[in-house]
Amino acid sequence: MSTEGAVKESTRILNGLDIDRLGQTMGAIEETPEISRFNFRTRNEWIDGGHNRTTIKEFYGAGQEDTTRSAPFVFDADEPNVLLGENKGANPVEYALTALSACMMTSLIYHASARGIRIDRAEARLEGDLDVQGFLGMDEKIRNGYESVRVKFKVEGDASEEELDELVQVAQQRSPVFDIFTNSVPVSVEREK
Amino acid sequence: MSTEGAVKESTRILNGLDIDRLGQTMGAIEETPEISRFNFRTRNEWIDGGHNRTTIKEFYGAGQEDTTRSAPFVFDADEPNVLLGENKGANPVEYALTALSACMMTSLIYHASARGIRIDRAEARLEGDLDVQGFLGMDEKIRNGYESVRVKFKVEGDASEEELDELVQVAQQRSPVFDIFTNSVPVSVEREK
Repeated sequence: MSTEGAVKESTRILNGLDIDRLGQTMGAIEETPEISRFNFRTRNEWIDGGHNRTTIKEFYGAGQEDTTRSAPFVFDADEPNVLLGENKGANPVEYALTALSACMMTSLIYHASARGIRIDRAEARLEGDLDVQGFLGMDEKIRNGYESVRVKFKVEGDASEEELDELVQVAQQRSPVFDIFTNSVPVSVEREK
Repeated sequence: MSTEGAVKESTRILNGLDIDRLGQTMGAIEETPEISRFNFRTRNEWIDGGHNRTTIKEFYGAGQEDTTRSAPFVFDADEPNVLLGENKGANPVEYALTALSACMMTSLIYHASARGIRIDRAEARLEGDLDVQGFLGMDEKIRNGYESVRVKFKVEGDASEEELDELVQVAQQRSPVFDIFTNSVPVSVEREK
């Protein structure tokens, strides 16, 4: 009985996440803060026209190079025909919305789990307005990126309306990609010769 | 002879792009600026734990709903094991780097083509530093998103060193996702009940 209890306690799963390990991870970071530093990487290769391909595999985190991915993730980007492409992939600003939607969802689920809230269903719909005169350099008053983005969540779970509202707030307060959209990231660019 | 010349002139291709159509598109926008307004959309569905799925298909642009995509683009996101996931997809901040790398590449190629510069090969490598204490809410001094991003381009083409350097500058000046990273985008979030 006591052994079974101990085993159960070391593998408490909520929303598909090992919440004991989440707590252990935070405890380990408190003891050794440098393990919280990650370095993520992409390699992009131009194919033709609006078509290019991004490959992702290695990253650094938790104090070491990660070796758990057996194969790379490969993402083709292209433009639709109206923007002179052939739809061989989503376009770059659609990848940006993908990043934002995935990140806000992950943030909501992780923080719900840390609070002991069971989520039954969660969905997010995003849309962003963009004027291509910015990209084309036709009007300096028009920005290149999204002028505005709207996010609509539907969340169902074992929680009050107030708790679910708060989780959607926490998703904004903690999401790395929400931060990237709403604040400035220093980006340095160079050409290798 | 004159007919052949006319046909050639209407389909001048550079770097895989129809550069006459690029010029025609810009001319059409000058006459009717509202066709430059686009609306892009994603739908994200939580699967389990750190695993969620983004679907992309329709968008609005050039004055109408686009119907050229026969199937949706589907992107699974997940976290690596060290962040309590199972590597069922790239993670959200890797998608953000994917968006940035694809967008800077597309910007470079389109603007090279508009300038009549033939590109033979182009590659970009990106890396970003992120401290997960921000996401975990462990230290308010640490931001959630990337603390810094570095982009390294390799570009070969029929152009001088100065022209190639300038193209890498133009990629920064015109890329929508570079703008999203380096400036603030208004993002509104609500929960539907």
